[in-house]
This record gives sequence, structure tokens and C-alpha cells, in this order.
Amino acid sequence: MTKAEKLVKEVVRTVPDWPEKGVMFRDITPIFQHPEVLHAVFEAFIERYREKQVDVIAGIDARGFLLGVTISYELKIPFVPVRKRGKLPWKTVWEEYTLEYGTAAIEMHEDACKKGDRVVIFDDLIATGGTMLAAASIVKRLGGEVVEAAAIIDLPDLGGSQKIWKTGVPVHTLSKYEGH
Amino acid sequence: MTKAEKLVKEVVRTVPDWPEKGVMFRDITPIFQHPEVLHAVFEAFIERYREKQVDVIAGIDARGFLLGVTISYELKIPFVPVRKRGKLPWKTVWEEYTLEYGTAAIEMHEDACKKGDRVVIFDDLIATGGTMLAAASIVKRLGGEVVEAAAIIDLPDLGGSQKIWKTGVPVHTLSKYEGH
Repeated sequence: MTKAEKLVKEVVRTVPDWPEKGVMFRDITPIFQHPEVLHAVFEAFIERYREKQVDVIAGIDARGFLLGVTISYELKIPFVPVRKRGKLPWKTVWEEYTLEYGTAAIEMHEDACKKGDRVVIFDDLIATGGTMLAAASIVKRLGGEVVEAAAIIDLPDLGGSQKIWKTGVPVHTLSKYEGH
Repeated sequence: MTKAEKLVKEVVRTVPDWPEKGVMFRDITPIFQHPEVLHAVFEAFIERYREKQVDVIAGIDARGFLLGVTISYELKIPFVPVRKRGKLPWKTVWEEYTLEYGTAAIEMHEDACKKGDRVVIFDDLIATGGTMLAAASIVKRLGGEVVEAAAIIDLPDLGGSQKIWKTGVPVHTLSKYEGH
């Protein structure tokens, strides 16, 4: 177990039956309230992506924003937001994905990345993988290459990370939680 | 004009008639695509709040998340999110505020700050000030002291920053735009 994973497991708060009965929600907000944990988390990601020659960091609305910006700041590369449809003011490319009931859509600005850019996409947690797959698809449509889908937590029992790997996009998370 | 303000004005994108006719929307996303601009912006805030002995940085959902975390990381102090109601999983304190049509509500976790904590609240932009005033009110109810309401952009013609000052909360922004 890495130092970052150990510290994450110490502070992540599990909230039972939220947002609905039967779900064990993994609350990452305490990570951001503990500077020593946040530093370990960021240092692990920064070191990893410094070596991988990344051009752009993308962060998924809204908890992916909490992670992506500091990493882009430290690596001195652009950060771009992936937002729920209707929140970005300029020209966008969007993609729909399926939820348990119905669909949702996310989008990126057209100038978020260009042909050949090596992009890492951040979210807080990988569950069923729907949002991350839609984000990866937008990056590819813009001409970018998705170096990795990154998150603090993977919920492997929900199958999202496996689904993402199958599309040719590697997944990197700092810790795993059984169940959902 | 400070270095940060000059760089901000160079890259902020004005999108006319968004989200509705007559509004000149100030799009801050290009700041995050230009590492030298982002560094100037963050350095200005970090230097300011290092001197003011801040205990906690709060960021308002979702564009305030883009600013708050890196500043808390550099200052080695906690970051806490202020979210739209229904997005935080644990025990919360919430506050309603008025929009042009109807109302909205934001909330913070009960342990976001404690009695006597000196808190800076971040958003990207101050318009009518409704969200910022609601966030400041929550911080005060939790026992915190709002050191300052901070943002990249102020739209003084909408009167928000003046309204915030009148409640005893200082406002600090890097740049101002006339009109709205």
C-alpha cells in the first residue's frame, strides 16, 4: 500500500445509504481538509504525470475540478474543464451517456485540446464509468490521445474501470473500495 | 494595473448574449489554459492570504473549486467546498438565496470550519453577490470569521461587491469589468 493510499483510507468518510438506500458513499471532502493527505495525493499524481509527458489535464465537473487544477499548475500545462451540458459559454463538443434512469450529457470547449495532445482526465471516483467514457470520447473527437483516466478511488465491483480499460484507455486510481 | 490583472484581461473571453440576450459573459476558462497566467493569478492570491493568517479556504461550486484548492495546497491549510444543496453527503448547514426568478440554496458540511476559524471564500466572479452572501452567512453560522470574499473578476455595475462590503465582509478581486 502506498503512502497516499494509506492516508486516503484513513480520512475518506463512508456515508451509508446516500444518495439512496443501499449505497455506501465514499466522501472525499476530508482529504481536502487534511493538508498532509492532500499533499501525498497530489505528489503521487504529479510525479506520475511528469514522467508521462502529458500536454493537457482535463477535470470532470465538479469533483474532478478539485484535483485537476493543482496538478496542471505544478506541471505548468493547461487545465480544461469537462462540464455538464449547458454550462460552458463558448463553442463545444458534447457527448451523451446513460444513467440508471435516463441520460445525461457533458461537453468540452472546442479548443480544450488539439490534434496529438496527450490528455489525462481526472475525476474523484470511478463507479460505472459512464462519465469518464463520455469524456474520453470527446477528447478523442477533438484529436487528443487519452493517456490515462485518473481518480482517487476505484469501485471495481461496479465494473467501470474494466469497461474503460476495454476501450484502450488505461485507468489509474490511488485506492480501491469493495462494494458500492 | 498588476501583472495578474494585465494577464487576466488578455485571456478572458467575452461571450456576448450568453446565457441570455444582453449578457456579456466573462469566460475564465482560458486562464486555466495558459500556465503563465494561472501562475500569476495564484501567486497573487497565495501571497495575499499567506500574510493574512487564514485558517480555511472555501470554494463555491463549481468554478470556485478551480481556484480554492491550489491556494489551500500552497498555504498548507484545509479546503472546504460550498455546494449546491443536495450534493454533500454528510451533515450540512444550508442557506437559501434569491435568483432573478425563484430561489436556490447552497450548503457546507458542519465540520467545514470551527469557532474562530479565519475563512476566505472563493468564487470565479462576483455579480449580484447572492451566492457569496449565502456562503458567508453559512461560515458565520459555523462560528467562522470571513476574512475576505475573493474572486478573479468583479462586475461592479451589478452591485454585488458593494452589497457584500456592507455586511462587513471585505471583497478582493483581481480585475473589474464594466457592464454585465
